[in-house]
Amino acid sequence: MNLSRLCVHTITTKPLSIEDAAKLYSRENIAGITVWRDALEGRDIRATGDMIRAEGLEIVSLCRGGFFPQLTAGARKDAIDDNLKAIEEAAALGAPMIVLVCGAAPGQFLETSREQIREGIAAIEPYAKAAGIKLAIEPLHPMYADTRSAINTLAQANDLAEALHSPWVGVAVDVYHLWWDPTLEQEIKRCGSNLFAFHICDWRVPTRDILLDRGLMGEGCIPIAEIRGWVQETGFNGFDEVEIFSTEYWSGDQALFLQKIKQAYLNL
Amino acid sequence: MNLSRLCVHTITTKPLSIEDAAKLYSRENIAGITVWRDALEGRDIRATGDMIRAEGLEIVSLCRGGFFPQLTAGARKDAIDDNLKAIEEAAALGAPMIVLVCGAAPGQFLETSREQIREGIAAIEPYAKAAGIKLAIEPLHPMYADTRSAINTLAQANDLAEALHSPWVGVAVDVYHLWWDPTLEQEIKRCGSNLFAFHICDWRVPTRDILLDRGLMGEGCIPIAEIRGWVQETGFNGFDEVEIFSTEYWSGDQALFLQKIKQAYLNL
Repeated sequence: MNLSRLCVHTITTKPLSIEDAAKLYSRENIAGITVWRDALEGRDIRATGDMIRAEGLEIVSLCRGGFFPQLTAGARKDAIDDNLKAIEEAAALGAPMIVLVCGAAPGQFLETSREQIREGIAAIEPYAKAAGIKLAIEPLHPMYADTRSAINTLAQANDLAEALHSPWVGVAVDVYHLWWDPTLEQEIKRCGSNLFAFHICDWRVPTRDILLDRGLMGEGCIPIAEIRGWVQETGFNGFDEVEIFSTEYWSGDQALFLQKIKQAYLNL
Repeated sequence: MNLSRLCVHTITTKPLSIEDAAKLYSRENIAGITVWRDALEGRDIRATGDMIRAEGLEIVSLCRGGFFPQLTAGARKDAIDDNLKAIEEAAALGAPMIVLVCGAAPGQFLETSREQIREGIAAIEPYAKAAGIKLAIEPLHPMYADTRSAINTLAQANDLAEALHSPWVGVAVDVYHLWWDPTLEQEIKRCGSNLFAFHICDWRVPTRDILLDRGLMGEGCIPIAEIRGWVQETGFNGFDEVEIFSTEYWSGDQALFLQKIKQAYLNL
């Protein structure tokens, strides 16, 4: 285990500006960075991409597109427009991939939301292809099925990616969302070359907040190394992306947190 | 819709003693009661069963057995002993069924916990059969896979019930745990006569606490009536059991809460 495949999401060190995050990650010899769109606010995106590369970091993906399900046709069109904007941003930044948090609208059946997700991704795929940007469908934990994603298992994400049948559409496997699934090993094997991204963190016991209490690798009950083994068996040789939302860690020193991330990663 | 199939879990009105709960449910013409074991603490269980029946209520089930996965053989034996005790309690109370919250041990793989659950239920089944008590395997939401249950989908519960192949072992369908599952309709159909119990409440948007923020039917995003339709299509003619854990509702007037439950149920 070394740091050459370690990527950190900017949201993991949310208190830092993208400039400070890039400097810090670089100083700590972290190889990759996944940029959240909020970190780009008010920046020249192309220049920010250049700044990140000048720090020696590889841009792994842009987070996040998606949120296709909406109660009205107008809102669904707005969502598609926002995804097209994300594709432009990814191209300007020099990110080869966008992670899709697909969305859900609590005022309609999940099946309806799932259909709107399929339509939304189909609508943006030609633009992604033209821009050379991959789209990674990220299934989210079922506890987010109300408002964040109607795609809640890797089986669903695989079904969707296979139905859309494009080399530009694949899936993102996040251990936090999927670790509980008894079909996980077989569904990871099924991904094959559709496995575009791998996200890690841990599930705290107890989990004190439904959104903002993710743990550092090793702090919880997810068998991360085992899942990582399954991912690697598919031939995946991309980054291990650390994505932690944590009120606790965000309230502390971010440089120290990054040290802990590195150590936890090396201990996997 | 009428109240003849409405059952309320004692945990739903947790601040009330079992005696006060039975009186209140009876006064409100609620037909069934599911008794949680904590409500029986310090009581003569047989006399409590008689008291409940004297109030005109039908005892639907005893909650809860389970918690089979443990890190040591000694602790697993203790868990089985506790389940045998639950069977005795159910028989004394006059409850025809025990709901199994199967358990999980965060220090071991989920697959190991799942195997221990199968072994545990197999170990207690002869005693349940001898006592004439049904065992209902309740799959719990994946957000409880760390410590409460390694059985997280109805497919798993169906697999397990079918493998154990006993008329005394079936499943409990709780909309809160299962509503997000894209295979829910097909798995409910698969249950057939193994569908022993049906629990209802709602998923609040947003959910403010991972355990104690369940909503009243209609307050959230679960398509309860649709799921209830699938359940009834299996031939199930048991109770609709209202099981709500809610810090908010527990802090208010329980008689008023029960009125709201009745109204919400009639509006389904």
